[in-house]
Amino acid sequence: AIGKRLEGLHPGDVAYILEGLPLDDRLVAWGLVSEERRGDVLLEAADSVRETLIADMDSAQIVGAAEYLDADEIADLAPDLPDEVVQDILEAQDDEDRAQLQSALSYPEGTVGALMDFEVVSIRDDVTCEVALRYLRRYEELPSQTDALFVVDRVDHLKGALPLKRLLVSDPEVEISTLYDRDILSFSPESEADDAAHAFERYDLVSAPVVDVRGKIVGRVTVESVLEFVRERQEAQALGKVGLREEEDLFSSVWASAKNRGPWLALNLCTAFVASRVVGAFEGSIEKLAALAALMPIVAGIGGNSGNQTTTLIVRSLALGQVSPSNARRLLLKELAVATANGVIWGGVLGIVAWLLYRNVALGGVMALAMLLNLLVAALAGIFIPLAMERFGRDPAVGSSVFLTFVTDSMGFFIFLGLATVFLL
Amino acid sequence: AIGKRLEGLHPGDVAYILEGLPLDDRLVAWGLVSEERRGDVLLEAADSVRETLIADMDSAQIVGAAEYLDADEIADLAPDLPDEVVQDILEAQDDEDRAQLQSALSYPEGTVGALMDFEVVSIRDDVTCEVALRYLRRYEELPSQTDALFVVDRVDHLKGALPLKRLLVSDPEVEISTLYDRDILSFSPESEADDAAHAFERYDLVSAPVVDVRGKIVGRVTVESVLEFVRERQEAQALGKVGLREEEDLFSSVWASAKNRGPWLALNLCTAFVASRVVGAFEGSIEKLAALAALMPIVAGIGGNSGNQTTTLIVRSLALGQVSPSNARRLLLKELAVATANGVIWGGVLGIVAWLLYRNVALGGVMALAMLLNLLVAALAGIFIPLAMERFGRDPAVGSSVFLTFVTDSMGFFIFLGLATVFLL
Ligand SMILES: [Mg+2]
Ligand SMILES: [Mg+2]
Ligand SMILES: [Mg+2]
Ligand SMILES: [Mg+2]
Ligand SMILES: [Mg+2]
Ligand SMILES: [Mg+2]
Ligand SMILES: [Mg+2]
Ligand SMILES: [Mg+2]
Ligand SMILES: [Mg+2]
Ligand SMILES: [Mg+2]
Ligand SMILES: [Mg+2]
Ligand SMILES: [Mg+2]
Ligand SMILES: [Mg+2]
Repeated sequence: AIGKRLEGLHPGDVAYILEGLPLDDRLVAWGLVSEERRGDVLLEAADSVRETLIADMDSAQIVGAAEYLDADEIADLAPDLPDEVVQDILEAQDDEDRAQLQSALSYPEGTVGALMDFEVVSIRDDVTCEVALRYLRRYEELPSQTDALFVVDRVDHLKGALPLKRLLVSDPEVEISTLYDRDILSFSPESEADDAAHAFERYDLVSAPVVDVRGKIVGRVTVESVLEFVRERQEAQALGKVGLREEEDLFSSVWASAKNRGPWLALNLCTAFVASRVVGAFEGSIEKLAALAALMPIVAGIGGNSGNQTTTLIVRSLALGQVSPSNARRLLLKELAVATANGVIWGGVLGIVAWLLYRNVALGGVMALAMLLNLLVAALAGIFIPLAMERFGRDPAVGSSVFLTFVTDSMGFFIFLGLATVFLL
Repeated sequence: AIGKRLEGLHPGDVAYILEGLPLDDRLVAWGLVSEERRGDVLLEAADSVRETLIADMDSAQIVGAAEYLDADEIADLAPDLPDEVVQDILEAQDDEDRAQLQSALSYPEGTVGALMDFEVVSIRDDVTCEVALRYLRRYEELPSQTDALFVVDRVDHLKGALPLKRLLVSDPEVEISTLYDRDILSFSPESEADDAAHAFERYDLVSAPVVDVRGKIVGRVTVESVLEFVRERQEAQALGKVGLREEEDLFSSVWASAKNRGPWLALNLCTAFVASRVVGAFEGSIEKLAALAALMPIVAGIGGNSGNQTTTLIVRSLALGQVSPSNARRLLLKELAVATANGVIWGGVLGIVAWLLYRNVALGGVMALAMLLNLLVAALAGIFIPLAMERFGRDPAVGSSVFLTFVTDSMGFFIFLGLATVFLL
């Protein structure tokens, strides 16, 4: 009965149902999904769930399911498949499909080549609309997300695009050459997927052609793959910010979860340990004035909060392409000015609070000065860390925070305890 | 010369250029943008830049620019416009446009009504394709992102949709009733924009109709507005996580920036102050054993890291609709088990390090036990805080972290210093 119910559903809905089931039930339900639909369900499933489904299939089943997928879709699954199985799939293809699949496999994640598919509908410009329509009728159905025909010359070089809605209302006698747009956007397979995503947003595109260096059309990008890219990167960044490299679903095992989360905790333990040794160097001062131990986490913590604000703004500006060497200096001066303003205000407030609380005006002064200095440190680190990560090809949205907190904690402790040791003891 | 150059550009490109200019230059360039293009540029500009451009326009200029916009576009700008100007715009519209604009203004952000536009192309099903095509030819150009005609009865109730690509290859003599899809997805204006976004992703839609409670078509959602919604929410969340309520651009004034960032720092100061008072309560213990001051930030910090991992996974599960009362218990047990595993491992490691470092086996034992307990606290807080925020209608992705860190810092200090006071002194 459930098998019948699954038959009637969209593959995306089947994937959603499978995601909500505990492993045992999930595999029972998976057994009821027919071979021709399994590939589509795998494509829609969350990574952690996809893995459990693939682990349940033998090599022949995977190759069988792959026969119902397009080359770009197989390439999207490939990272989760055993290498031998990918080889088997390649061998099972005919020559044209194999060439497409090899091309799709060759582009790294984050490039237009990894986003593109091969469902290009192209047409020559020296024919009439009537001929074009007759040609289109030979398709059982046009590929999804086809909003335009790509116009090519006789060796498949891109010349422009003819929107379907224009073809629809055109006189059948008219030649394509008089109708199509010559000034259209195209991408190269090596360009960054992120740039393509921005272009789709800015120009409200539905599909766009991908051309090689000689201008020959090799594929197309659709808004559906852009939307998926934007969403997946967003999720990867949210997870990456807290050091999660893989998705966990609610039913992942305790052991798999602990392994997924462990490296991040270990990294943070190391940085926390170094910060702890900074404090350790001042244990003599703390013994004499235990108030220092109570106040030092405030100095360190607010530095972290403020630095993370700066970093978040820089990451955003980097993503929008707004940070350049020419405005980096201006940016730095502005962040230092903001940090000074905040440092004077909040350092002043906390200095007074510390003074009243401990009836020690010098302690209040040290507190205020340490807050100001650590906010300046935070501004510098908050700018330089994401810029350095970008420079070294890492995603600044993901890794900046741990380094930043390391700097603001260690320096916060050092500045506050150091000033206290000099001025108070 | 630059005016001419701006004329030739897409409004999105003009907005991008304006975003990259310091305020003075930006306003000069803005003066060169013609009235009929200003609305489109405002729509494409980042919020912080949009504000500076609007502030430069008088009421008559804004009303003039609005005349070139659709009702849904004016509604998108409305939150940034002075209330009187919105009234002026309403009065300047004819009756049909005013009704649309009032409808667009009435839906809160985050609903389908706020996403939708009114560029619906609908058709009756009792006509032939030929009649339909003749009807379409009366449009100078079909609205962008039109991939289907919505099929309606004589009182505009939605019956289905006819994909343009099917109409394109159909015999002109055939009646629409034999061609169109009856089983299509539609939304209500009150439904959540987020649900619509998930549907667009799952079913690869380009446009979808919006119907009122009686099934009458009132608008449509397009994939371009979905893509914009997904991106804008992603940015709002990234900024909101560090307490930034407004976008700042590189050229925002120092004072505006400090005001934007201040409330977050103040909130974090308050929580840090409470945590500091927890430490203050144990100053007697710290005076006797200054090592406690060095070790306590590790216990607190790792609790925060681990709890943020849990929270991030819960937020993700909430967004995917995977957390329900039926699996909440299972989830809780799993997180406690993961926390126990991590607590035993990393608490053990740190306990041994503390023992060796201070040659004090009891201190090592207290360290290990405190780590384990604070990781359990972090797991509980990491689950309950986002669930509570969701329950109270707040975005758990944005506000959870500050509460979580408050709990893990305060409890980390309390557990560690409390155990130390009981067992070591
Ligand atoms: Mg996926
Ligand atoms: Mg398929
Ligand atoms: Mg791909
Ligand atoms: Mg495809
Ligand atoms: Mg757009
Ligand atoms: Mg895809
Ligand atoms: Mg901290
Ligand atoms: Mg915007
Ligand atoms: Mg317009
Ligand atoms: Mg709107
Ligand atoms: Mg529009
Ligand atoms: Mg999709
Ligand atoms: Mg819109």
